[in-house]
Amino acid sequence: MNEERFFVTYRLFAIQTEAEALAADICLEQTVELPDSQVTDPWIRQHIIGQIEGFTQIGEDIFEARISYAASSATYELTQFLNVIFGNTSLKPRIRIVDIELGKAFETLFPGPRFGISGLREQLQVSSEPLLCTALKPMGKSPKEIADIAYRFALGGIHIIKDDHGLADQPFCQFQQRVTACCQAVAQANQETGLHCIYAPNVTSDAGQIISRAYFAQEQGAGAMLIAPGLTGFATMLHLSRQPDCQLPLISHPAFLGSLVTSPVNGISHAVIFGKLQRLAGADASIYPNYGGRFGFSQQQCLEIVEGCKSAFSHLAPIFPTPGGGMPLERIAEMLALYGKDVIFLIGGSLYARSPDLTANAKFLRAAITK
Amino acid sequence: MNEERFFVTYRLFAIQTEAEALAADICLEQTVELPDSQVTDPWIRQHIIGQIEGFTQIGEDIFEARISYAASSATYELTQFLNVIFGNTSLKPRIRIVDIELGKAFETLFPGPRFGISGLREQLQVSSEPLLCTALKPMGKSPKEIADIAYRFALGGIHIIKDDHGLADQPFCQFQQRVTACCQAVAQANQETGLHCIYAPNVTSDAGQIISRAYFAQEQGAGAMLIAPGLTGFATMLHLSRQPDCQLPLISHPAFLGSLVTSPVNGISHAVIFGKLQRLAGADASIYPNYGGRFGFSQQQCLEIVEGCKSAFSHLAPIFPTPGGGMPLERIAEMLALYGKDVIFLIGGSLYARSPDLTANAKFLRAAITK
Repeated sequence: MNEERFFVTYRLFAIQTEAEALAADICLEQTVELPDSQVTDPWIRQHIIGQIEGFTQIGEDIFEARISYAASSATYELTQFLNVIFGNTSLKPRIRIVDIELGKAFETLFPGPRFGISGLREQLQVSSEPLLCTALKPMGKSPKEIADIAYRFALGGIHIIKDDHGLADQPFCQFQQRVTACCQAVAQANQETGLHCIYAPNVTSDAGQIISRAYFAQEQGAGAMLIAPGLTGFATMLHLSRQPDCQLPLISHPAFLGSLVTSPVNGISHAVIFGKLQRLAGADASIYPNYGGRFGFSQQQCLEIVEGCKSAFSHLAPIFPTPGGGMPLERIAEMLALYGKDVIFLIGGSLYARSPDLTANAKFLRAAITK
Repeated sequence: MNEERFFVTYRLFAIQTEAEALAADICLEQTVELPDSQVTDPWIRQHIIGQIEGFTQIGEDIFEARISYAASSATYELTQFLNVIFGNTSLKPRIRIVDIELGKAFETLFPGPRFGISGLREQLQVSSEPLLCTALKPMGKSPKEIADIAYRFALGGIHIIKDDHGLADQPFCQFQQRVTACCQAVAQANQETGLHCIYAPNVTSDAGQIISRAYFAQEQGAGAMLIAPGLTGFATMLHLSRQPDCQLPLISHPAFLGSLVTSPVNGISHAVIFGKLQRLAGADASIYPNYGGRFGFSQQQCLEIVEGCKSAFSHLAPIFPTPGGGMPLERIAEMLALYGKDVIFLIGGSLYARSPDLTANAKFLRAAITK
């Protein structure tokens, strides 16, 4: 029997006696789901019930409990891991997960990102400068129109050109037609420029479709894939990342994950959701809303996400933080200063808005980051 | 081109001018992801961009915007449907989905619950009384011990005996061993009682496992399945519900969905998450925390969930609201008065606590609801 344990830190918003009771409840709720008095088996009491490993006050009526669980209770399944850390407790107010730490037990079970920062750099043959990513849009355009946009951005030196995450398999822009056209367009541009731009189609789709779309994308020459784990489930992204014969970098999109972070006293912290859990589930780059854009994330929350993406976390490779969402070209210098070089800048709307010449706009951006 | 539309009602927590701006933003954010001025194509403007169909004040600094989207933008995929209704907007604070209405376009695309209330009643041969469900626990017990508990509850007349949702494929309680043992135990009890108790194993697991577990469960004689769409993704539950050769009722568990509802000004309403979306994704029964138990749901929220499970909703069959979570036996009369007969009472802990004789406890409960 594997007796390794893993650790979850919960922030509890309550007065001390209540916070202590909440911590004790979590230990039972997330495992045996019975009152303490009803659990008599000594092995279950010693191993299965969560154990409070630390309890600290961090503010007025704010406490943190670090609780450990048996690795065997989470087995080798990400669904069950998520269930143990937050299944029922997600339904209780005033409890927020702020950290997770893995034990050695998970090294082979969750191998993590296949590429990470170094692998994706190798793929793109860009050794140290920040990577540039843009999105193909708007929804409603035909595959031919979308591919034409891809071609023009690729000519301008964008490193990664992804589908807008709203491009799925609409009748006006079917997945296979779009992927075929965009792969050709980007290959054509690369031939002309000598660069190594990659196209990342959105493979987010229903469980019966996702793997076949991924293989189709790879066969057509896609260089990465976009997936939104909030829509597919994190375990589906993990499954995609472990395909033996479909090995493309995964770019994770935050769609539908917002409710986990929008309330500061519930859910899961920015660093865990957009950093650590992404790595655990196999993403190589994690998109999140940049501060000062049209979403409400603060600079501090963005830096926490960077930490979650890049800091030491068991055996899991660091991945690219990928800020995006309302990021005007004028803010590039500020972004460079804040994020450093191991970052992907996702710039969509403002790259369309600068001028009708998308290639010139891309070149302008490229020049700005290589200054 | 399909020009049907579907409707989402967003509650906006802001002063009127801000709420109006939020509504206009949603129309763009959920579709074209570009500022209005950058979308010039008339077809995209007319069809793809969301349209505000209604805007009403419902309280002080609280407004509701009813926004329609082209059915074709959501295609036939549940992932994309969820993306259109709430993908990026989930990341913005002070916006909560409170209703969704489908158009005719979705009738064949999302056929909904295979069984619903009437189908599950037929399966169980219980024409009008409330159904009783209990959970096998605690995590840590062996398949043999779990099966013994199932046998004793089945003898006592419980209609549905489900795995605790924390039972996955742990080394100490592997899925196949547990399912085989529990199916045999419940069949044995049925032979003795002449009743039609069913066992519902938890098939929640990673994307590569879930379908094969479901088929295994059906082959062994399981009568339903438990799945937690918060862990697997709603689209995975839908996929499971549409298997041509694995047709068992689905009981949906709320694990990991809590962050969508815990903050009243963000996320998605109780009625939509635990009612309408469950029906859309093929659940036949929806478990949620009962009011007055150890979770913080109010009676009003529970009644809204009942409404979401049972009220007219396009072509989708009504499903069983399944309150559970800290429901003492003494409250059965109150629950009966509130919920009526088309309900499943999920009673776990208190059915273990009443006495060591689980069969007697089950009979006591059964008698209480047939009074």
